[in-house]
Amino acid sequence: MVRANYLDQERAVSTGINRYKADLRDFRFLMFEQFGVEELLGKAPYANWGAEECSMVLDEVYRFACEVTGPLNASGDAQGCRIVDGRVKVPDGYKEAWNKLYEAGWAALQMPEEFGGQAAPHTLSALTAEMLSGSNPAFNMYPGLALGAAEVIGTFGTARQKATYTKRMLDGTWGGTMCLTEPQAGSDVGSASTTAKKLADGRYAIKGTKIFISGGDHDMADNVIHLVLARVDDAPAGTKGLSLFIVPRMRITDDGVLGVHNDVHVPSIEHKMGINGSATCVVSFGDDDACIGELVGLVENHGMMQMFKMMNGARISVGIQGVAVASGAYLNALDYARDRKQGSSIKSFKDPTAPRATIIEHPNVRQDLLDMKARVEGIRAMIFKLAFHQDMVHAAESRGDANEAYHQGQVDLLTPLVKAYSSDQSFRVCEKAIQVHGGMGFTRDYPVEQACRDSKIFSIYEGTNAIQSMDLVTRKLMQNGGANAKAFIDDVVRFIEAHRDDALLADAVKNLEKAQKAVGAMGMTFAQWITTGQISRIPLASERFLEMMSELAVGWLLLEQAAIAVAKEKDVADGHPDKFFYEGKKAAAIYFAKNVLPGVVTKSLIIQGGDTSPIEISDQAFATI
Amino acid sequence: MVRANYLDQERAVSTGINRYKADLRDFRFLMFEQFGVEELLGKAPYANWGAEECSMVLDEVYRFACEVTGPLNASGDAQGCRIVDGRVKVPDGYKEAWNKLYEAGWAALQMPEEFGGQAAPHTLSALTAEMLSGSNPAFNMYPGLALGAAEVIGTFGTARQKATYTKRMLDGTWGGTMCLTEPQAGSDVGSASTTAKKLADGRYAIKGTKIFISGGDHDMADNVIHLVLARVDDAPAGTKGLSLFIVPRMRITDDGVLGVHNDVHVPSIEHKMGINGSATCVVSFGDDDACIGELVGLVENHGMMQMFKMMNGARISVGIQGVAVASGAYLNALDYARDRKQGSSIKSFKDPTAPRATIIEHPNVRQDLLDMKARVEGIRAMIFKLAFHQDMVHAAESRGDANEAYHQGQVDLLTPLVKAYSSDQSFRVCEKAIQVHGGMGFTRDYPVEQACRDSKIFSIYEGTNAIQSMDLVTRKLMQNGGANAKAFIDDVVRFIEAHRDDALLADAVKNLEKAQKAVGAMGMTFAQWITTGQISRIPLASERFLEMMSELAVGWLLLEQAAIAVAKEKDVADGHPDKFFYEGKKAAAIYFAKNVLPGVVTKSLIIQGGDTSPIEISDQAFATI
Repeated sequence: MVRANYLDQERAVSTGINRYKADLRDFRFLMFEQFGVEELLGKAPYANWGAEECSMVLDEVYRFACEVTGPLNASGDAQGCRIVDGRVKVPDGYKEAWNKLYEAGWAALQMPEEFGGQAAPHTLSALTAEMLSGSNPAFNMYPGLALGAAEVIGTFGTARQKATYTKRMLDGTWGGTMCLTEPQAGSDVGSASTTAKKLADGRYAIKGTKIFISGGDHDMADNVIHLVLARVDDAPAGTKGLSLFIVPRMRITDDGVLGVHNDVHVPSIEHKMGINGSATCVVSFGDDDACIGELVGLVENHGMMQMFKMMNGARISVGIQGVAVASGAYLNALDYARDRKQGSSIKSFKDPTAPRATIIEHPNVRQDLLDMKARVEGIRAMIFKLAFHQDMVHAAESRGDANEAYHQGQVDLLTPLVKAYSSDQSFRVCEKAIQVHGGMGFTRDYPVEQACRDSKIFSIYEGTNAIQSMDLVTRKLMQNGGANAKAFIDDVVRFIEAHRDDALLADAVKNLEKAQKAVGAMGMTFAQWITTGQISRIPLASERFLEMMSELAVGWLLLEQAAIAVAKEKDVADGHPDKFFYEGKKAAAIYFAKNVLPGVVTKSLIIQGGDTSPIEISDQAFATI
Repeated sequence: MVRANYLDQERAVSTGINRYKADLRDFRFLMFEQFGVEELLGKAPYANWGAEECSMVLDEVYRFACEVTGPLNASGDAQGCRIVDGRVKVPDGYKEAWNKLYEAGWAALQMPEEFGGQAAPHTLSALTAEMLSGSNPAFNMYPGLALGAAEVIGTFGTARQKATYTKRMLDGTWGGTMCLTEPQAGSDVGSASTTAKKLADGRYAIKGTKIFISGGDHDMADNVIHLVLARVDDAPAGTKGLSLFIVPRMRITDDGVLGVHNDVHVPSIEHKMGINGSATCVVSFGDDDACIGELVGLVENHGMMQMFKMMNGARISVGIQGVAVASGAYLNALDYARDRKQGSSIKSFKDPTAPRATIIEHPNVRQDLLDMKARVEGIRAMIFKLAFHQDMVHAAESRGDANEAYHQGQVDLLTPLVKAYSSDQSFRVCEKAIQVHGGMGFTRDYPVEQACRDSKIFSIYEGTNAIQSMDLVTRKLMQNGGANAKAFIDDVVRFIEAHRDDALLADAVKNLEKAQKAVGAMGMTFAQWITTGQISRIPLASERFLEMMSELAVGWLLLEQAAIAVAKEKDVADGHPDKFFYEGKKAAAIYFAKNVLPGVVTKSLIIQGGDTSPIEISDQAFATI
């Protein structure tokens, strides 16, 4: 057996040991078998898109991920970013990949055509984003942030701002960032103290320091356009007093060309556990009192609302990053398990002369693999469902009817689940992928250790997962008088009613029903806590509840996939790849229902048990040192 | 707020941001309040040891860990090891620390005095090892491996071998390794193909390549003594045909001084996720057919049995590494939470002008901290219990009575729990410690990200945790006709009977009882699977069962601590640190009983549910790519 240790990185990529892998069959299943996206295609707002176009884009982006971004993943991690003469230098090859990405048009697929996008459905762009993020999560931060910032200006900016900035931030000419965090104000955005002083010409002098700014500077584009949360004179305290400003690194003249430097500096970048190709910057504005910004739109103190447009998109993107990295790790572990020989089959474990078996033959390895598969494909389905609701909202074209409200409600409700559950599970899946590799998984010769390091940030940025869980329980559950949550549960119940007598799935559906009842009952408990002033118990329960609800969603969608597989496999010839594909769908759903869903009930019992020891213990009792 | 980002590493250590921390109050509680180690002291075999000596050593080793090994933890990680002119160069400062360690006598505390040790109880050395590993897990690998190898020679070697090697491997003159793994044989040790050809003088010519050899070479000592598993001519297949050889890097002359080079080479070292200060080497023996080894003892084909002496010790050491790194991460997270201000108290969360709170005031952070505390202190108690049984065996002085058998049985039974549960949970605790730090935790400015990377290997080396779980279920549960497992359960039941009516703990004890019954019932299930030929179901259940049994042990020991705390806190004045310490013991036990123990029952239900989808699914169905 040849060990990657003896190969250089380039050879490791070309031999496939360190190659990005995606399961396009699963992508097509989601699009055309589970969610029936073709119903939406070929008519407004997706008139230019047919099933064939979608399928072709999937193939092309996969090729791009394997050939362009993927091969830079390990090298970018090893090289990292650095500051040279005050500018951030990204890893070798990034600039070429950036150019190719924008040439190919993959960075702004879902944006309107007026901004140079292709008006693609979100269901498609969620899958292409998975491949771009999965093949190189660090690299993909740069175009991802630029897209998010461009979208904010495209939504809330004046006509002039849209004309000046949006298109160029979507065609790779300029980068973009979101600047929220300050040293004294991390999750607590409302404490931001960066100031904006109105000038005679209506623009603002910006002064302050932001930290943890992804892509805060880079040398792939001429300019970086920062969206900066700052406080104008006499603004109210907290988030209500924040305004959002467009602050380019280089000023733009009235003719729209690059002017002088705008007193925006990057004094340092972070040294991190992972995503080392992504420059995480300290950005200081107005050190020399010469930093000029313009308000996004026309009204002050709307910054938080405007930024939330970007934040919601970014949270979904983090969910996509999570499944993307996890999926790559799973498929690499699967490859390794199919290839690596170790020990003999359990059936002949006492015979030292028995032939060596590939480790995929070992039951515990199979269990790890099936566990990873179920989580990855189930979470992907949950994210795809969110994107499907986004498409349905878009297709409703602001009619404001019940149908649009339903779909928007599901987008809102699913966003914290997608962000938090996908990111938490991503780290766990990567951990398992390392374990399948044994000692090899701990070395940098195989991609899973980087995947694990990269994935750790997903549970933290764009609002920690604790914050997501509070958003879910204190806001999303009650939104529209609880109608969104009720609609979600009703959809699950409808599936249960339709499938409780399925020959193969009945037991699994029973577990789904128990989970559904446990989730449903929690709503009452939370309402009771709120009305009886026990609000500090909610954060003790919210993360567990977010898991419960996510696992209900994932279990449901996996079982829906299995039901489709049961119906379709009959018509597939033995030995055809689809026969195996459908078999995999059944196995993943049954595995998840029997191994994960019982935990949903336990979590509800634990919450109902009402342990308050964490809030009762005194600070000193955690440790007397 | 000053961010560590702007500090150099040295200042970060001196300001305490990056300092190793241990909770010596908990150590003393284990020794003198829970396990009553003083009963064993002051008489053979611990005649030289009193409570005061033990306590003094704890203080001294803590000072050593904070001042000598701890400050090299981050720098050693950043610098790593490299090969210069064919020798492994360890990070700066390691050589001085190595010298100080052996001067102080901390490396061989528990070894007999004839070998230069201090014949200390294992209960004491388990705690000192925790501090050495916790402050710098990578550095501590070198003396740890040397100790293990010296112990094997001290146990199985001839009188001449003991005289030649053991003492010098325990006083820092020479290093030591264990060489099991080969490229084609990782967990499957029996496939090793390194050969040993008997020479005319009774020694052996060794030829073969070993990988993943920790400390396979280093420049802190004159020589490295390898213990190499190899196969003599016509040896039986598998592990039964392995013999163990002493193979020094430099030959030793008959006068016991260093001779010529022994054809032992280190062509490369691994690039890893963590423990980067520990050189993980490829070691090749006999490239030029000039590598000479001598058999450990006098009998061929006893290598596996001899190596297992070392393996069992090494597995316990990995368990100690796990809790060591986890404890450091917890105490650092606690410090951070007590210091970092962010947001306002949940009681005034709607008032943006409310004073900023330290994050320890946030319920979800408190929950994370209490979760870490309970796991760390509970796992430490489980490890300490194992060490206590080792001391009792030692004190029994090979009388071979029922008492000795009981204690040895508990050592054997607990070893896989200690190795696997501690290492798995270590990674999880580190993950949580990062989460408490927020974005800061993902940077290299705080020690928790290194802790997380370092800890990942613990679940893999010295037998993966899957292997530990199979050892538990297929060997340890049935050892002595099941008497060891029965004795363990009986001890738990005795505690439950004695405390089921405790005012404060009754509910928690009820949860313990449910967990105990669930664990007890699993034994029957496994026996039934074995007698009905369903052996391949065991690896699907074994890891979950190892968790169940570990959580039962941890929950029990935490509740025992809480019961002691209840009894003792009455006599402690308010405001005394012990009042808080005992409060913490109660809170940790109740938290664990109410939040973790219910999961034990769920796991048994999942196992009984009997899902076999991982063994039924065909290989191709995992993914059709």
